[in-house]
Amino acid sequence: MPTADETSKIPGSRGPEIVATPAPFGSCPLPISEHQRIVLGHGSGGKLTADLIEKVFLPAFRNPTLDKLDDQAVLKIGDLRLAFTTDSFVVTPIFFPGGDIGRLAIHGTVNDLAMSGARPLVLSAAFILEEGLAMDDLRRVVESMRAAAAEAGVQLVTGDTKVVNRGKGDQIFITTTGIGIIENDVNISADQARPGDKIILSGTVGDHGMTIMSQREGLEFEGAIESDCASLNELVVTMLSTSTSTQRRDFIHTMRDPTRGGVATTLNELATRANVGMIIDQRSIPIRESVKGACEVLGLDPLYVANEGKLLALVVPEMAEAVLDRMRQHPLGCNAAVIGEVVDTHPGMVLMKTEIGGTRVLDVMFGEQLPRIC
Amino acid sequence: MPTADETSKIPGSRGPEIVATPAPFGSCPLPISEHQRIVLGHGSGGKLTADLIEKVFLPAFRNPTLDKLDDQAVLKIGDLRLAFTTDSFVVTPIFFPGGDIGRLAIHGTVNDLAMSGARPLVLSAAFILEEGLAMDDLRRVVESMRAAAAEAGVQLVTGDTKVVNRGKGDQIFITTTGIGIIENDVNISADQARPGDKIILSGTVGDHGMTIMSQREGLEFEGAIESDCASLNELVVTMLSTSTSTQRRDFIHTMRDPTRGGVATTLNELATRANVGMIIDQRSIPIRESVKGACEVLGLDPLYVANEGKLLALVVPEMAEAVLDRMRQHPLGCNAAVIGEVVDTHPGMVLMKTEIGGTRVLDVMFGEQLPRIC
Repeated sequence: MPTADETSKIPGSRGPEIVATPAPFGSCPLPISEHQRIVLGHGSGGKLTADLIEKVFLPAFRNPTLDKLDDQAVLKIGDLRLAFTTDSFVVTPIFFPGGDIGRLAIHGTVNDLAMSGARPLVLSAAFILEEGLAMDDLRRVVESMRAAAAEAGVQLVTGDTKVVNRGKGDQIFITTTGIGIIENDVNISADQARPGDKIILSGTVGDHGMTIMSQREGLEFEGAIESDCASLNELVVTMLSTSTSTQRRDFIHTMRDPTRGGVATTLNELATRANVGMIIDQRSIPIRESVKGACEVLGLDPLYVANEGKLLALVVPEMAEAVLDRMRQHPLGCNAAVIGEVVDTHPGMVLMKTEIGGTRVLDVMFGEQLPRIC
Repeated sequence: MPTADETSKIPGSRGPEIVATPAPFGSCPLPISEHQRIVLGHGSGGKLTADLIEKVFLPAFRNPTLDKLDDQAVLKIGDLRLAFTTDSFVVTPIFFPGGDIGRLAIHGTVNDLAMSGARPLVLSAAFILEEGLAMDDLRRVVESMRAAAAEAGVQLVTGDTKVVNRGKGDQIFITTTGIGIIENDVNISADQARPGDKIILSGTVGDHGMTIMSQREGLEFEGAIESDCASLNELVVTMLSTSTSTQRRDFIHTMRDPTRGGVATTLNELATRANVGMIIDQRSIPIRESVKGACEVLGLDPLYVANEGKLLALVVPEMAEAVLDRMRQHPLGCNAAVIGEVVDTHPGMVLMKTEIGGTRVLDVMFGEQLPRIC
């Protein structure tokens, strides 16, 4: 636990007050051994998911690539470095403002590739359809995947279709897997974060999650809310092409798209992986008024709400402003902001200077805030 | 439709009689436009699946790689040739004699890679778990995947887990995607088949499908039936290393594992793709007595029943015996047999000399014989 002495090192901190005491990281309040059955929280992307990975999947499949726990594996095959990633999409409803499950499935996998600095090349798509799915809905989803793939500049080159009995699925589940190529001396990974790195967020938080939530609950909020679902590979190319005096491309240490579990959970994962601390300034976090309002009505913290077209980047301090400038010239980065920095204190922990001037621990999400958000 | 004259060309045929008239290939008795909703048959691997691919997926995603409609895409990246394939597994029950959904998910994807002559390198696994799944069942499936991956010599390097609400899934669905490397001058694809090629089947038909069927229906048949679920990559290496006078490796034109839809449907797909005819000799097809008996009781044709550890290979005639010899020395090929040959008559059509001496058309499966077999 951080001491008052440690928090007093926070630059610009208004005071050393810590308003929440975190559970020691890595210890799960409900250990998996007490979960005899899978609960929705195991798919939340938060602490229960991490626990499932750590206790069930990693012990079986352990290898150096998997152990990195990035959202994509980086493979060296011959002289090539390839990124490889997979995601299942089970969002409900399957159509929502700003996108649908098909668009999400393409952009989600493209983004996981792009977060390693890879140029996405090809995708596969495996469909699990529920008996009774309307053919027109399938066509609409497929058309949306086509358009999204064209936008992202990737080809879908192989696939599979299975059908399950009525009541044994939910309309349509899509698993997309992608291969990308990592060029030049790019080396972006969760374990590359270093104290001093600036934490850049590419835009507003919570748009996707609150869209799904309001659709599902039939809620209408002031001001339109729509999913931010988009492919970030072009934005990443823009960021990587920021000119440097040395022509080096290793000024971006880490990137990740804050999907399930939101910005707070993603920052915690990164802090743990690199064994560094982070300080976030709440006032610097971009958020739409409509999303903020919806979160207040529903009692949700926007920092834990899923995004589908945003990225977090940890950038060496001397390059942060230049990268930010380039991002802001791109439509998907026009609201980009530096929201905090990596520090060498309180490793594995994320602290946030709140709007009212205090400092609180921004913990990982424990269970399930919004199930089936992606 | 073949004429008596054509069938009289069948070497060794006992007579020109044709006992079934096929629907013209490619015309579906129930066009997809009449299917307003997805039915189980769309996942059968038969005619309805082909129709779905042709009418919904291909028009959207059309590209030269996908258009080949092999079970894997072959990608040229830099100097490398990579095979890339994906499959969702939705088998029920998830545990069965000879395997489980985890073992199937590893072997199935390894086999799709191996069928292009690729050496499987890495896999991804995406899990869709139903809320309420017993943690012990998940552990058992994961352990089985670990063992199967070790057997096949592949690493699982990335993954994903989603959880859906109770009643919106069925215990566990797994999507595995694999990357393999194609070395030397291997060029194995459905469109490589040539008249004269011998058709080799690596072992007995119907074991997997009849295992699932008997489990599901609670049937017991004389003699144990168990799934043949196995990785064929080592058998393929053995086949490819058959010594030739020229040191060439292009003596295997086509390989495919006859899973959904069985041997009959797979042969039809290959005949259509290469625009060649095929003649099969029913008496030469290896089948276990127990499986044959079970099929008779249930009124199923074993040639349409799924296999999960068998392959069909189309081999140049002068090498067929040598390849067969090598296969028979491998545990997974000990019952291998030449079951027929590729001919230049009746393109796109498979004829079978029956046990009683007639000749009938072996058509593609139309709907769903055994849903959720893999």
